[in-house]
This record gives sequence, structure tokens and C-alpha cells, in this order.
Amino acid sequence: MLQLFSEHILSKLSFLKNARLVVAISGGIDSVVLAHLCKKLGFDFALAHCNFSLRGDESDADEEFVIKLGEDINVEVFSQRFNTEAYAKENKRSIQMAARELRYDWFKDLAAQLGFDYVLTAHHADDNLETFLINFTRGTGLNGLTGIPMINDNIVRPLLPFSREVIEAFARENNIEWRDDSSNSSRKYLRNKLRHEVVPILKEINPQLLDSFESTLDNLNDTADIVEESLNAVAKRAIVEINENGITYKVSEFKKVNNSRAYLFEMFKEFGFTEWNDVVKLLDAETGKYVQSHTHKLTKHRDMLILTNASHSVPNPRDVSESYLINDLNSTEFSIGTLSFEMVSESSNNTGSSIYINKDKLVFPLELRLWKAGDVFCPIGMTGKKKVSKYLKDEKLTPYQKVNTWVLLSEEKIVWVIGHRADERFKVTDSTSNFLKIEILTTKH
Amino acid sequence: MLQLFSEHILSKLSFLKNARLVVAISGGIDSVVLAHLCKKLGFDFALAHCNFSLRGDESDADEEFVIKLGEDINVEVFSQRFNTEAYAKENKRSIQMAARELRYDWFKDLAAQLGFDYVLTAHHADDNLETFLINFTRGTGLNGLTGIPMINDNIVRPLLPFSREVIEAFARENNIEWRDDSSNSSRKYLRNKLRHEVVPILKEINPQLLDSFESTLDNLNDTADIVEESLNAVAKRAIVEINENGITYKVSEFKKVNNSRAYLFEMFKEFGFTEWNDVVKLLDAETGKYVQSHTHKLTKHRDMLILTNASHSVPNPRDVSESYLINDLNSTEFSIGTLSFEMVSESSNNTGSSIYINKDKLVFPLELRLWKAGDVFCPIGMTGKKKVSKYLKDEKLTPYQKVNTWVLLSEEKIVWVIGHRADERFKVTDSTSNFLKIEILTTKH
Repeated sequence: MLQLFSEHILSKLSFLKNARLVVAISGGIDSVVLAHLCKKLGFDFALAHCNFSLRGDESDADEEFVIKLGEDINVEVFSQRFNTEAYAKENKRSIQMAARELRYDWFKDLAAQLGFDYVLTAHHADDNLETFLINFTRGTGLNGLTGIPMINDNIVRPLLPFSREVIEAFARENNIEWRDDSSNSSRKYLRNKLRHEVVPILKEINPQLLDSFESTLDNLNDTADIVEESLNAVAKRAIVEINENGITYKVSEFKKVNNSRAYLFEMFKEFGFTEWNDVVKLLDAETGKYVQSHTHKLTKHRDMLILTNASHSVPNPRDVSESYLINDLNSTEFSIGTLSFEMVSESSNNTGSSIYINKDKLVFPLELRLWKAGDVFCPIGMTGKKKVSKYLKDEKLTPYQKVNTWVLLSEEKIVWVIGHRADERFKVTDSTSNFLKIEILTTKH
Repeated sequence: MLQLFSEHILSKLSFLKNARLVVAISGGIDSVVLAHLCKKLGFDFALAHCNFSLRGDESDADEEFVIKLGEDINVEVFSQRFNTEAYAKENKRSIQMAARELRYDWFKDLAAQLGFDYVLTAHHADDNLETFLINFTRGTGLNGLTGIPMINDNIVRPLLPFSREVIEAFARENNIEWRDDSSNSSRKYLRNKLRHEVVPILKEINPQLLDSFESTLDNLNDTADIVEESLNAVAKRAIVEINENGITYKVSEFKKVNNSRAYLFEMFKEFGFTEWNDVVKLLDAETGKYVQSHTHKLTKHRDMLILTNASHSVPNPRDVSESYLINDLNSTEFSIGTLSFEMVSESSNNTGSSIYINKDKLVFPLELRLWKAGDVFCPIGMTGKKKVSKYLKDEKLTPYQKVNTWVLLSEEKIVWVIGHRADERFKVTDSTSNFLKIEILTTKH
């Protein structure tokens, strides 16, 4: 049984072997099995437990269980209490959403502060199938049907290909103890209904259901990549101008495609529009006609569509092909803000708005420009190269954020995907002697 | 109840009002309700019944029932017997596939020979949902999740938005009689399991399941259009040469995209390849390396991939931008065959390889070229214009057939999507006096 897991993990996720890991653990069977598995595989890991304080004594008992487990298997435990209800109220989230945000934010902090490379979670194939069915039952689109990713940035899910059945068998075989979660939230109710009433019938129809499901997800993820590519391509061709107030699009590019509505929807859905028939009609409307959402306005102007914040007037055009050459460490102003440089005596953590690099790796002049198709970089903390397009997709940026993402380059190598991720090749190491802090101050709008 | 149906049909499918229709009828509740509905709406229609001879006396009783129904509602009935088992054996089809092919082929013939504009079938929302779940359970891709189309060329499904429940209520309200199909084929067994055991639970979770499902399908169909667009765009950029033996692709175009494997799969799946890792590796392989399927061979040659029939050697290149001007009615040879013209004394039915048009509508020189993005035509027998790209997609042509589709034009108006569909604007009418037959003799390979 151990072999089944270890073969998968050591072949598909071999990078976990030499990394520092933190295992997200609730005390339930899945995460407890994952912890034991990491122990058996000799991984370098700690446990991280969130106490969401939602089930009183039971929550506390879960926490104690995890601390005890850490002692038993001789692994460090980090535990954090959250006032989930207060957070949910304050931020207008559902309890489930609030817990999710709190959990992932804390994991990210923990990983950054304590130098962990990856956070492991215990999602498995049945979780994935249930999520698919929940989304489908509620009504969704392709994005709701592509499943949970096995690797998403520094979150890794080693149990994703395995069924609940196999995990339970492993727990029995190894006399593993765990805590059952007695909560009966509506989300659990839904999952239980699907788990006990729907999935067994589907498995009766197709005993290889989980394998078929895995290949369906592979296919749909490939399709999602193609869609992403197409949206980026059409956006690149359609967008002629971006400035601080908005974006200008060529109408002709939306007319060339075989389904204008599909592209308009994907491109503008994030701006709160709901009247898609009206948006489609704009393509043939007179100059001055517009469609408005709560936050944005899409205006027909000659053969262009101009997207503005609802409160702004039509912006002045700016060329998207603009590019700046940076010859020295003076600040550079550009359309989204100011890029500044500062020699500092020591390095600190990178944030969304500032990074620390080894100044000696830079070759001037640097180039500052919008990212473009084909751009590749080495995301710091990860092995290997990644296409910027793929990175921005995985980060789930909105189309607006995507087209408005800038990169800083030295000798055509990306130093920083600005506001998002530094590059491994310029990072500070033990032998670095000249520390350069680069910061972006974005223009508020 | 009638109003519910008629509102939908008269608003979304208003073109049915002035058309000659044929209703495909089995004798089951759905198609019988559809027939009664057409009667109540005053449509001009006939009934067409297939007797697949699969259930002996029962099949014959179904046929008699339909003939009797035709008499009762005073509508012409066409009935056709098939030896489905013999056909399935001969053509190596499942019984279900065989029945499907026989049915649709016969409907198409009937429509063409007797001048019917549309064939109506009685598929409804629950059929659509069950098909989705069957495909999902077996494992599928986006194509298996986009549902049954409401309009597909001349096949129209007026009941598609309605649930089985509503159709049953209409039958009760109008004292409609029908025949129950007692067959218990494996397909029916599957459907019944989903219908009685899975769907009710999903409807319990979401009482608006069918509405949610409809919007999910709309979303997925929009996504499918975007995918189609992207595949066409990459194919157009990648393909540099087509000739009678095969197709030459630029490797660089497959490397530019964010998921090479996804595009390679979509572009080459129809040629029988199965070793997709090897296909991906070809992108970086030396000249001369190849991957082979039973029917085809994909060879790396410098910075190109060359697809050939397995038995052929690498073809000579030919320019895809070639175009011929046709000044008179002499035959024209081009890469896929010979186009010939003949003045005839009377018109006949169009086929895949020949069409009849009104010669007086032509303005010479005609142009003969591959179709291109943005091409639009008026498919004969239909109202309105259609993009050629959309038409080829709806016809479910393979990518190879798609890139190799030629069009004949007069004054930039398409006369014929060669081998597929003539244009309404050039068709023979009662007032036509000069009949021109245009024929394509394709080169065998």
C-alpha cells in the first residue's frame, strides 16, 4: 500500500524530496494519513493546524490531537487560532470562504517567514469528484469543471490521484488514528449526499470512474489552456491603448471571431456587466452609445470600444508597445506608477510591491515593458522555467490585471514580474554582497 | 401549457412557421407530443417513422400506431423499414450507432428528395442531461459536455428546453396516447439508472437543476467556440503547405503556445496517433525522427513537422495561398481535383460533388481558393448568413478536411463551399432559364 503512494509521489513530485515542507493538517483521516506518509517517505516537514474556533471544545480537542501527533512522530507543529466568525462578518464572507482565506493566507505567511518551500494539503480524488459534481449541480462553466490542481504555485496535493477508499485502507493497515469531524455544515451535507447517494451509482455504472474522471480533467485542463491562449491572443490584438483610466479595444477584432459574445463575455465579465446582449449590440452601435455596470462603462467610439471606470471620462490613449530603458538607479515613472531602486545593507522578504536582488547580476540598461507572449522566467523558489502567460493564468489574475502586467528585464532575462514574482536567477544568496531593493509605487485609481 | 411551448417555439424558432417540416416520430411520448404540438401550431409537416425491425411485432405495432396517428391528425406519414442488424454487422457498428446512422441518413434523403426544409426531433432537457452524465461517467472531454444542439444544420429540436415532466403534463392535459418502448438495451438501462437514481438527488440539491444545466451548456458551448477559433488560428499560422500527400506545419507555432501538447493532441488526434509524449518530443527532435500511427506518419524535417499518409513519402510543398481565376466554363485543375462546368437543360438535386445554379447570377472571372477566416455565405435552404468557419465546425469536419476546404466565388460572394454546400443566392428558382451544373472530381489518394 505504501508503495502505491510512494511510487506516485517520488515520480511525479520528486522535488518534494529535497524541499522543506509544511503539511496542512485538520486531524481528519486524509491529512493525518498524509502526515504519516511524509514521515515514512523521510520528508523534511512540519505540521500546520488551523483552529477556526467554530466547534468549541471539539476544535480544541482537534488541536490537541495534532500537537500529540507531532510529538508521536517527532515533527514540529505550528498551530494558529482564528476568530473565523468575526473575520467573516467583517469581510462579508461566508464562514466557509472565510476559513479558506484565513487558512491559505496563514500558510503563505508561514512558508515565507519560516522558509518552507511547499505547503502540502490532503485533497484526494473523491474530493475532486465531489467538487466537480457540486459545481455542475449549481451551474457553472469550464472553470468550475477543471478540478483541483495537483500543484498550484507552492501548494501541492500529493494524494489527489488516490481514492478515499485507498486512503482508508492505508489508515487501517497502519493502525493510524484520526479525529472525525462531526460538523454538519450545509457544505458537508451537500458533499455527503453526493458521496453516499450519487457517486456510488456512478461507480456502479463505471467501476473505473475515478480513472475516467482523471482523464476527463486532463482533457478539460488542456482545453482551458487553449481558451486562455485564445483570450490572450484576441486581447493582444484588440487592445490598442491602455492608460490609468481604462482600455481601448478595436471593434474589428471582436467581429472577426466566430462567436463575438463568447469573447466579449470572457473579456469583460470581471467588470460587472450583466446585459450581454447590449454589449454585443455595441459592436454595431453609433459613437457615444455605452453600456454601464456598477463600476465600469463600455463606450463605442468610432471603431473602438473604450472601457473606463464608471466615474471617469474617456481616457487619453497611450501606446501599449511603450518600453523604457533604465540606465541607472534613478526612479522611472511609467503608466502604472513609479519604479524605484535603493541599495540596502541587507535583504528582507519580497512582497507584492518590493523585491531584493543581487545587484551584481544586473546589466544596464534594464528594460521595463508590458509582458508579451513567449516571455519566460524562473519563478523564485521553484525549479525550472515557466511561461509568464502560464504563471499569470495560474495566479488567476483578471484579464485586466493580465494585460496590465509589466516586467523588468536585464539582458532580456526577466528580473521581476512586477507586483507578482521575482526571478530565481537574480535572487539574493549567501554570497551576495550588494543588495538592491526594487520597489513599485503604483498610481492609485 | 400549450402557451409555454408555443411562446418558445414562435420566438426562438420562428422560421419553422413558414417552412415544410418533417417530424421524426417513434411512437413514444416525446415525439407524439411533438407531432400534436406541430398540429396545434398549424405547422406544415409530415411524419417520418423508422421501423428498425429490432423488436418484432412490437416494432410493427409502433409503425401501425404512427400510421393511425397520421390519419387522426390528417398528416402524411412516411415509414421506412431497416434491417438494422445486417447494417450493423456489415458496417461494424453497434446496434445503437447503426440505428442512428440509418435514421439520420434517411431523414436527410427524405428532406432533400421531397423538399422538406427541416427535420424535427423530440429530444428534451432530461435527455440532454442524461447524455451529459453518461459521457461524464464514461470519461470525456469538452466535446462530450456541450449537449445536443437545438439547431444543427436542418435538424431542429423544439422541445430541447423542456423537461420530461412538462412534456408528460402536456400529454395528460391533452389526452394524448403514445406507445411505451419496452426494450431494455444497455443504453436504456444506463439512462434509466441515471434518470431514476441520480438525477432526482441532483434535483433535490438544486430544484432549478435543468435551468442551471442550460446555462452550463451555454457557457460550455461558448467555450467550445473559443477553442475552435484558437485551433483554426494556430492551424492557419502553423500550416505552410498542403498537397495531395499531406500537410507541413511550422514547429515554432506549436512552441509559441502555452500548452503544446493540448494543441498537438487536438490537431492530430484524428490521425490515429496515441503516443502523445513522443509527438511532443518531435518538436525538439532531429530531422528524420518520426512518430507513426496505423494510417499516418508525422516526421520532423528541420523546423517543420510533415504529416503524410503512412504509405507515402514526404510530399512536395505547395503554397496554401494559391488561388485560381476562372474566366470561362472550361475545367480547372487544382490541388484537390478538377472543377468542371456544364450547361444543362434542367436542374437536379445538389450532391456532395455537384450543384446546379442559375448561370445568369455569375460574374466572371470566378475565383477558386481555400476558405479563409471571415468568409461568410448563405447556406442553401436556410435563412440568413453563416460564417464558413462556423459551418465547417457544425458539420464536424476533421481539421484536415477543414483546412483543405475550397470555395468558389463570384464577385467575392461564395457560390459553393466545394463538396459541402451551395449558396442560396445562386440557386435555381422557378424563373431560372440557364442551368449550370458545377462538379468536382476529386483526386483519389
